[in-house]
Amino acid sequence: MKFTIDARSGKARAGRIETAHGTFETPAFMPCGTKAAVKGLEPRDLRDAGIEILLCNTYHLALRPGEALVAEMGGLQKFMGWNGPILTDSGGYQVFSLAPLRKITDEGVTFQSHLDGATVKFTPERVVEIQEMLGSDILMPLDEPIPFPPDPKVARLALDRTHAWWKRSRAGRGALFGIVQGSIVPELRKESAEAIAAADPPGFALGGFSMGEPAAQMDEMVAYTASLLPDARPRYLMGVGMPRDIIAAVKAGVDMFDCILPTRMGRTAMAFTDEGLLRLRNAKFARDERPIDPSCPCACCRNHTRAYLRHCFSVDEMLGPRLVSLHNVQYYGRLMKELRTAILEDSLGKVTTWPKVP
Amino acid sequence: MKFTIDARSGKARAGRIETAHGTFETPAFMPCGTKAAVKGLEPRDLRDAGIEILLCNTYHLALRPGEALVAEMGGLQKFMGWNGPILTDSGGYQVFSLAPLRKITDEGVTFQSHLDGATVKFTPERVVEIQEMLGSDILMPLDEPIPFPPDPKVARLALDRTHAWWKRSRAGRGALFGIVQGSIVPELRKESAEAIAAADPPGFALGGFSMGEPAAQMDEMVAYTASLLPDARPRYLMGVGMPRDIIAAVKAGVDMFDCILPTRMGRTAMAFTDEGLLRLRNAKFARDERPIDPSCPCACCRNHTRAYLRHCFSVDEMLGPRLVSLHNVQYYGRLMKELRTAILEDSLGKVTTWPKVP
Repeated sequence: MKFTIDARSGKARAGRIETAHGTFETPAFMPCGTKAAVKGLEPRDLRDAGIEILLCNTYHLALRPGEALVAEMGGLQKFMGWNGPILTDSGGYQVFSLAPLRKITDEGVTFQSHLDGATVKFTPERVVEIQEMLGSDILMPLDEPIPFPPDPKVARLALDRTHAWWKRSRAGRGALFGIVQGSIVPELRKESAEAIAAADPPGFALGGFSMGEPAAQMDEMVAYTASLLPDARPRYLMGVGMPRDIIAAVKAGVDMFDCILPTRMGRTAMAFTDEGLLRLRNAKFARDERPIDPSCPCACCRNHTRAYLRHCFSVDEMLGPRLVSLHNVQYYGRLMKELRTAILEDSLGKVTTWPKVP
Repeated sequence: MKFTIDARSGKARAGRIETAHGTFETPAFMPCGTKAAVKGLEPRDLRDAGIEILLCNTYHLALRPGEALVAEMGGLQKFMGWNGPILTDSGGYQVFSLAPLRKITDEGVTFQSHLDGATVKFTPERVVEIQEMLGSDILMPLDEPIPFPPDPKVARLALDRTHAWWKRSRAGRGALFGIVQGSIVPELRKESAEAIAAADPPGFALGGFSMGEPAAQMDEMVAYTASLLPDARPRYLMGVGMPRDIIAAVKAGVDMFDCILPTRMGRTAMAFTDEGLLRLRNAKFARDERPIDPSCPCACCRNHTRAYLRHCFSVDEMLGPRLVSLHNVQYYGRLMKELRTAILEDSLGKVTTWPKVP
């Protein structure tokens, strides 16, 4: 993996990352193809939206269809028909969200499959092995996010474990990022950044954000954490977020993002626009002949009115979720392109002129 | 509406029908956009599959969003973003399938809405009025299908009512087809064809098929009914069917078809091929790296393997239903194109060389 910085604007960077499955420009947004499919969207739809890299989930794919099958089919990219780079998360977050079903020890995490109750064990070594079998371009180590608000004792234990696991995490072919944890505690973030950087990974993930902390606190701690990381490595803010969060983080020097919001909100009739979120189930759209956004080049905005989209949701037509997801992913794709252009032109300040951006 | 016959092969015809919203070639297959959306597919997907005309449903659209709203939005074509002709069925079939909730009199049909129980009345005059407000290019009159197997008394009453209703059915701008009923009773079919033809409608629908009768009996009665109809008018076999049914009917001189099967079966992982139906949930496809059909130009077959499609259905990804629907509609589109080419080349006999066609 090779990261090149093309331009800077303040702390923000515009760059490109080369992987075995192609190059993507940064700042980059990765839609979530959790189970090897971005919900309702084809690879060509994602390309049309300017998307260049996807995120998939190790936990879900290890359960179904299993990493061995994916490896046999030539890797995740070929399996899902995505001709481009893929990042996989370690499955740690999913395992921790199964709280009553899992047990964490220094060795790793033992849990019951949410599908059939079978006992599964994830260790730092095992999650890297799974991701290598999946053929990921960028891999994530096993980590233990700290719940918000952080309890000092819990935070201490979790951070120590994350760092101990990190020492056991080594990848072969793929680029294994390190994950910096530490919740909203500056001292812990600093300690974590140093512990992770000791192994000089090819990139750094900022983990443990969007856990319920207020937006301003998140912005501040993301900026602080980014400032602790080596300039020459890409920075990836995991699971974030709303457009405003992404804009703030790009300004702080973050390069990569993933979030389920564009597709999850698309499935519930919520459309992103620079004028705010449109709740398309609202009766006021019943006769609205405008597209979601007249300036948007997506197939939904080129061909469909708000009135029609509202109708699709009213009568439970699956075309509604697809079309609004299509638009939302395009919205995120355009946002990243605008941010990148602003960095190349060193005019990133202008991007604050979106007062209603969601 | 103008129907032109370009070529013949035996009793089969290749033609074209001009409407206010464009021309479509025959034999034509109309996917069902029951509630103003073909499930999971965009208008551009349908165009890519060679589809030129859609069917929508009067009953469903009269309930939601209501014909007044559709009229205000500029008609069904503009409302759903479909730049082409639309045929609407009268809603008679849906009303009759609500048996316990409806009452049929000579005046019309009174029923309880399946949504909120509200009493709704459909008369022959009213269903035409709704369809004109929807802006349909081809309209269907109210009729009363005869259940299979036919009871002589029930059949007599239903047929008399269908013919009495037909006399009250008159359209303005759109092309109102007549519907020939009569179940599997040749005398009733003959009587019905004469009663309907008396008003010289611009086209004829063959109703009351695919009601549970054996395929051979349907083929025979479709052929007999088609032979009773004026040569210069298009013939539309309502709600039929499987590819083999369509091939048989085209050979008997039928020009138009609609059926929910390509999308309904697509949603349940059943894919059409000339080698038979593929049940993609089957474990034997787990490692099958072939597309559904290597000769198919659809986006699903160009980019996705059977193994991936099976995975999508296994993990309930909505991309699975979309992709297989896309393929199935393409299959039907290609079938109609092949039949048309065979008629133009007067080689329709060759089409019987598909021993495994579903």
